[in-house]
Amino acid sequence: MSDFDLKTYVNDRRRLVDETLDRVLPPEDAPPPTVHRAMRYSVMAGGKRLRPILVIAGCEAVGGMAERVLPTACALELIHTYSLIHDDLPAMDDDDYRRGRLTNHKVFGEAVAILAGDALLTHAFRLVAGNVDGASDARVIADVVAEIAEAAGTDGMVGGQVVDIESEGKTVSAETLDYIHTRKTAALIRASLRVGAMLAGAKPDALKAITRAGEALGLAFQIVDDILDVEGSLEELGKTAGSDQRKQKATYPALHGLEASRRRARQLIEDAKVALVPLGPAARPIAALADFIYERRS
Amino acid sequence: MSDFDLKTYVNDRRRLVDETLDRVLPPEDAPPPTVHRAMRYSVMAGGKRLRPILVIAGCEAVGGMAERVLPTACALELIHTYSLIHDDLPAMDDDDYRRGRLTNHKVFGEAVAILAGDALLTHAFRLVAGNVDGASDARVIADVVAEIAEAAGTDGMVGGQVVDIESEGKTVSAETLDYIHTRKTAALIRASLRVGAMLAGAKPDALKAITRAGEALGLAFQIVDDILDVEGSLEELGKTAGSDQRKQKATYPALHGLEASRRRARQLIEDAKVALVPLGPAARPIAALADFIYERRS
Repeated sequence: MSDFDLKTYVNDRRRLVDETLDRVLPPEDAPPPTVHRAMRYSVMAGGKRLRPILVIAGCEAVGGMAERVLPTACALELIHTYSLIHDDLPAMDDDDYRRGRLTNHKVFGEAVAILAGDALLTHAFRLVAGNVDGASDARVIADVVAEIAEAAGTDGMVGGQVVDIESEGKTVSAETLDYIHTRKTAALIRASLRVGAMLAGAKPDALKAITRAGEALGLAFQIVDDILDVEGSLEELGKTAGSDQRKQKATYPALHGLEASRRRARQLIEDAKVALVPLGPAARPIAALADFIYERRS
Repeated sequence: MSDFDLKTYVNDRRRLVDETLDRVLPPEDAPPPTVHRAMRYSVMAGGKRLRPILVIAGCEAVGGMAERVLPTACALELIHTYSLIHDDLPAMDDDDYRRGRLTNHKVFGEAVAILAGDALLTHAFRLVAGNVDGASDARVIADVVAEIAEAAGTDGMVGGQVVDIESEGKTVSAETLDYIHTRKTAALIRASLRVGAMLAGAKPDALKAITRAGEALGLAFQIVDDILDVEGSLEELGKTAGSDQRKQKATYPALHGLEASRRRARQLIEDAKVALVPLGPAARPIAALADFIYERRS
């Protein structure tokens, strides 16, 4: 793996994703401009683009070309962004800052923030449905829409968020915490890897390997997120550090301690890498991303 | 047309839609129950089911079977319902009652209401994507997803809602009012008829006729809605009548007067019926629905 340069890999793909996002989002001056500005404000706030990069890495791991999955990769970023906008609302987590900038509703007001989130979710499905080219089986597109909808709905992201909110201020069981973690963040991360592979025509065995890696990776990501919230500072996270504690959120470190959390995250990263072995060198980027997810400081 | 019984037609199809909605929505006790209860609370509040019935009528007008389009028909109802839940939120129209019952956020709280809306929108796309059967071209499914996303997004429903909110308390031009009306409600009504026809394999000419009828019908629906708000009473509308006036919403009667509004709606209904003539007797239900839209009291 020594010849693989993750930084170059990530930068190249992030650039592709950013260019595509700029192209597929409605222009700021297209009517009605308010909601288009609000959509771009949050999407273009400069996130890690982890989910779209995982879509691309999932595609490349089974021999596909990045260009082929860019609209769907961007769709995953739009869904992630919509969830942040809605989570930050006063009625939800009530956050004023995100990625070091004012949250969407602080800039555009609550009504526009709600609608911008709705519009991003809606636009995501338009992008996925439009990701048909001559080589694709349209049946795969329908499967990918269903996969993303499942991961983003009450069996996935929304379900995790509901239980997360309901658990605030309560002592939750390890079981409930796993429920929240596997859904709130992990479901969409797993789906990102999977749909990339599906669009590239992955064989069942390869898709199974990718799925197992995605599951481990997604859970590791959320545990590391919890750890960073405990350890982080305002500069590093771009949001008020310790906000999970302030809101008495159910977190892995709160329930199992920091050391056990680090061990569990590390184990999950190793699990992901073991699952990827059958895919050979094409899966190297995913393995490197797994290490990055563990080591990241924000 | 004298032998066509609209009441029986609508009742039969509404029963089919209600049964399918009950089957495709997650059960109330499935985890997390809160959001599933909130979703069912609003979906099962007993609306007219106009959009799903239009999907079925669009399908039947070009020779398709209702059973074939039921998941997509229900998806349109879920999208309509999500838009009502979000529109009723305190940050938006701030309504306490809808269809004679407390609005979603009054019963479940704002956070769950936002998430229930998000979940309904997400689930809608899952239903459309799953509406594949042996006879369907999966490519049509991808087209239908894109069509619905376009009608529900910033080019359609969300766009109309944004401008509607921004126009509150202002004197709007006839042009702006048309912008709001063709998007806020008409886009989804037009899409309902169209996707029904698309799923049934409509030929280009038939789809063009359906599209023209859908456009006229959708606009007529919104103008009649405006008229009913002026005329209506609490019993008839199930929400506080005159709420458009109270909120200083841009409406057709406010700008053009009641008489001109009625004439315009009547003309649009006639336009829709003329557009449907080439489709012959199979389009009779749509024509009857057009009359119903004009004559309805709620």
